[in-house]
Amino acid sequence: MATGTKPFPTMHPVAGFKLGTTSAGIKTVGRKDLVVMALAPDSTVAAVFTQNAFCAAPVLVSRQHLSTHTPRYLLINTGNANAGTGEQGLLDAQRSCDSLAELQGVSAQQVLPFSTGVIGEPMPMQTLLTALPAAVEALDENAWVDAAEGILTTDTRAKGASLQYRPNAASAELITITGISKGSGMIKPNMATMLGFVATDAEIDAELLHHALQRVVNKSFNRITVDSDTSTNDSLVLVATGASGITIDECNFEQFVTQLEQVFIELAQAIIRDGEGATKFVAVEVDGALDSAEALKVAYTVAESPLVKTALAASDANWGRILAAVGRAGVENLDVSRVSVSLNQVLIVEAGGRAASYTEAAGEQAMAAEDISIHISLNRGTVEETVWTTDLTYEYVRINAEYRT
Amino acid sequence: MATGTKPFPTMHPVAGFKLGTTSAGIKTVGRKDLVVMALAPDSTVAAVFTQNAFCAAPVLVSRQHLSTHTPRYLLINTGNANAGTGEQGLLDAQRSCDSLAELQGVSAQQVLPFSTGVIGEPMPMQTLLTALPAAVEALDENAWVDAAEGILTTDTRAKGASLQYRPNAASAELITITGISKGSGMIKPNMATMLGFVATDAEIDAELLHHALQRVVNKSFNRITVDSDTSTNDSLVLVATGASGITIDECNFEQFVTQLEQVFIELAQAIIRDGEGATKFVAVEVDGALDSAEALKVAYTVAESPLVKTALAASDANWGRILAAVGRAGVENLDVSRVSVSLNQVLIVEAGGRAASYTEAAGEQAMAAEDISIHISLNRGTVEETVWTTDLTYEYVRINAEYRT
Repeated sequence: MATGTKPFPTMHPVAGFKLGTTSAGIKTVGRKDLVVMALAPDSTVAAVFTQNAFCAAPVLVSRQHLSTHTPRYLLINTGNANAGTGEQGLLDAQRSCDSLAELQGVSAQQVLPFSTGVIGEPMPMQTLLTALPAAVEALDENAWVDAAEGILTTDTRAKGASLQYRPNAASAELITITGISKGSGMIKPNMATMLGFVATDAEIDAELLHHALQRVVNKSFNRITVDSDTSTNDSLVLVATGASGITIDECNFEQFVTQLEQVFIELAQAIIRDGEGATKFVAVEVDGALDSAEALKVAYTVAESPLVKTALAASDANWGRILAAVGRAGVENLDVSRVSVSLNQVLIVEAGGRAASYTEAAGEQAMAAEDISIHISLNRGTVEETVWTTDLTYEYVRINAEYRT
Repeated sequence: MATGTKPFPTMHPVAGFKLGTTSAGIKTVGRKDLVVMALAPDSTVAAVFTQNAFCAAPVLVSRQHLSTHTPRYLLINTGNANAGTGEQGLLDAQRSCDSLAELQGVSAQQVLPFSTGVIGEPMPMQTLLTALPAAVEALDENAWVDAAEGILTTDTRAKGASLQYRPNAASAELITITGISKGSGMIKPNMATMLGFVATDAEIDAELLHHALQRVVNKSFNRITVDSDTSTNDSLVLVATGASGITIDECNFEQFVTQLEQVFIELAQAIIRDGEGATKFVAVEVDGALDSAEALKVAYTVAESPLVKTALAASDANWGRILAAVGRAGVENLDVSRVSVSLNQVLIVEAGGRAASYTEAAGEQAMAAEDISIHISLNRGTVEETVWTTDLTYEYVRINAEYRT
C-alpha cells in the first residue's frame, strides 16, 4: 500500500555527477542493489547521518572519510545494512572502499560507503566486490532512475525529485537540483533519512553547502515519522559539482535554499507516502506554540500515537484520541480550554471540547480523504511546525512481522 | 486475545469496604457498568490521577473533593469517559455525586466520581441516575467479583488481586489487601492506571498511606505500557478502613509496602496480560544504568518501538531492532560496545554485536514462549528498572480501528 499517484518525475541530469547501478545479488538475485555515484573532481559535499548510538559500520566509515577528504565516489548497497556487525562490519565497509578506490585510481578515503537492509547479518563481501566493475561500467549522468530503484528495500516505489531554476532573470543559465531517497519503515530520521542523495550543478563552497543542508533537512527529512523508529543507517548526502559555473554566494543563497527545500520536501514526503502499509498521508500542523520545541512535541506525540494512527486507518474522526495525545505531550501549563483542532478544514474541537458546529457526518467526510491535515492550535504563542506521517494498518504489522522470513 | 491463563483469584473481603454493582445500560444494555463503593466512616484514602492535561471531568471533581473531604463513597461508571465534555461534563460529574450523596445522607464532597469508556460523548445522566439505587442496594463486602466486572471496557477479563498476611508472627491477626483494576488500551499510566481500586483493613494515617501508594505505584502501574498513550481518566484509589484494628506505623511500614506492592504488581501486570490484541507478555529489564531515568528511557524506548513489538508478535528474534531502539533512546555517551542483550536467558548480543554463542535456533526457541523477558545490560552503572508491555498485533489494529463502530 502507498498513497498518492503522482508519476515518477522527469529527472534532470546534473552535470558532473554520474550514477551506475547493477544487480549484485546481495539479498535477492536479479534485483538492482548496488549503486556507484561519481563526483566531478571539484565538487563540494555536505552530509548528515543518523544520531542512533548504534550506527552502522558504513556510517562510521563515511563520517571518518568525510572528516579528512572530499569524496569522489559514493558506494551504496541495499539488502544488507552492515549494522550490528561489530569489528568485521567495519573491515567490510573499509574493504569495499578500498576496492572501488583501486578500480578508479583514487584513495580509499575519497569513497563513502552506504548500506541499507537487514541489520545484524554479515555482509556478503564477495558478492558485492564481484559486482563493482559492472556498476562502474554503467556510470552515466542520465542514470538517475536506475539508481533510485537500486537503493530500495521494502519501498514499493522509487522516489525522486528534480527541478531547474534560473538564478538570474537576466540570463538564460539554469541551476539543476536532482535527488533520490529511499525508506518506508524504521522512519523517524534524526538529522537524515534512511538514505538520500541530492546533487546540484551549482558551485558552492563546502561550508555554505553544509549550512544549506542543515536548513532544509530540518524542514523536510527531520519532520517525518512513520513509526518513531530511528534507523541505524540514516544518511543524506548533498553534492554540488559546480559544473553549471554559477556560484552560490550570500546574495543568491536564500533563493538556492528555497529551491533546495522544495526538492528535499518532495523526497521526504515521498517516503511518507510510501510508508509501510500506509493508506493515508497525514500532515500534523501545530500553531500558536510558544516555541518550536513545544510545537514539535505536540506534533510528534499526535503523529506517533498508535491510537490516533489506527483511528486514521479506519477513517474514524476520533478527536478524543487527538486531544488525549495533545494532553500527554508534556507542554507545560497547557490551557486546554484554548485548544482547537481541525481535520481538513472541519473544526472539530474548540475551547477544549467538541465544536458546537461539528457533526459526525462532517468528520466522516473529512476523514474519507487520502490526504489528511490535522491542524492543532494551542493559542498561546506564534510558532508553528508541521510533521508528516502515515496511518497504522494491518499491513504495517504484516510487513514488519514478516520482514526477515 | 490475552496472555496467561491464571484463574481469577479468591478475593478476600475487606472489613469496612463494600461494593455494589448494577447494569445501568450506559453504553450496552444488560452489561454491568455502574459500581458504588462504600467506605467505613474512619477510613483513610490516598489517590493518584492521570497527568494528561486533558483530564476528564470526574478526575477534576475527584481531585477537588479529595482536597477538602475524606471520601465515604466511590462512584464508577464504564461505557462513557465523560472526557472532552467541557462545562457540561463537570456539571454531570458533580450531579452524580449530588445524587449518591442525597441517597446516602452524606455531603456531595464525600463522593468521588470515576468514569471510563468513549471520550467526547455526553454522559447519559438519566440512565446513570436511575440505576444508582440498585447499585446502593447491592452494597456488600463480598461483592468484589461483580465490581471487577463492572468497571471493564475493552478488557477481555476481570482483574483482581488479594492477599492476607500476618504482620506479627506472635499473633493470629491478619491484614487483608484486595484490589481490582481495568484497562487494556490507551495504557501508559503516568501516576495511575486507567482505573484501580485497592482496599485494606489496616489502620494507617492518610499521610503514610499516600506515601505507601506513591512507592508501590512507581513499581507497578507506572511501569507498564501497551501503546504509549496516557488516558485522560487514569485514577487509582487506595482505601484503608482500619477495621482490622492493626495499625501500620514506622515499625511495620516496610512490611506493609512489600505486601501492597505484590497486589499492585499483580493488578498492573493483569492489564498488560489483557493488553489489546496481546499474544505476549513482555518484561523489558535494563540494568547497569547510571540512574533510574536512563534505565527507564531505554526500557520504554524498546517497549514502545513498533518494530520491536511487531517482531515480538511474529516470534522473530530480530535483535537488530532492539539494538536500534537502545541506540535511539537518548542515553548520553552510550558505549555501544559494552551493551549486551538476552532474550529469556539466551544471550543474543554481547559487546554491541551478535553474541558468538548465538544461534537462530536458540533465538527462535526463546521467542516461542508466551512470556518473554528482554534483558538489556548497559554496563555503565548499577541501577536497574523493569517495564512490562505487550506485542503489537493485527488484533490491536482491528480493536482500535473499530472501537467506536
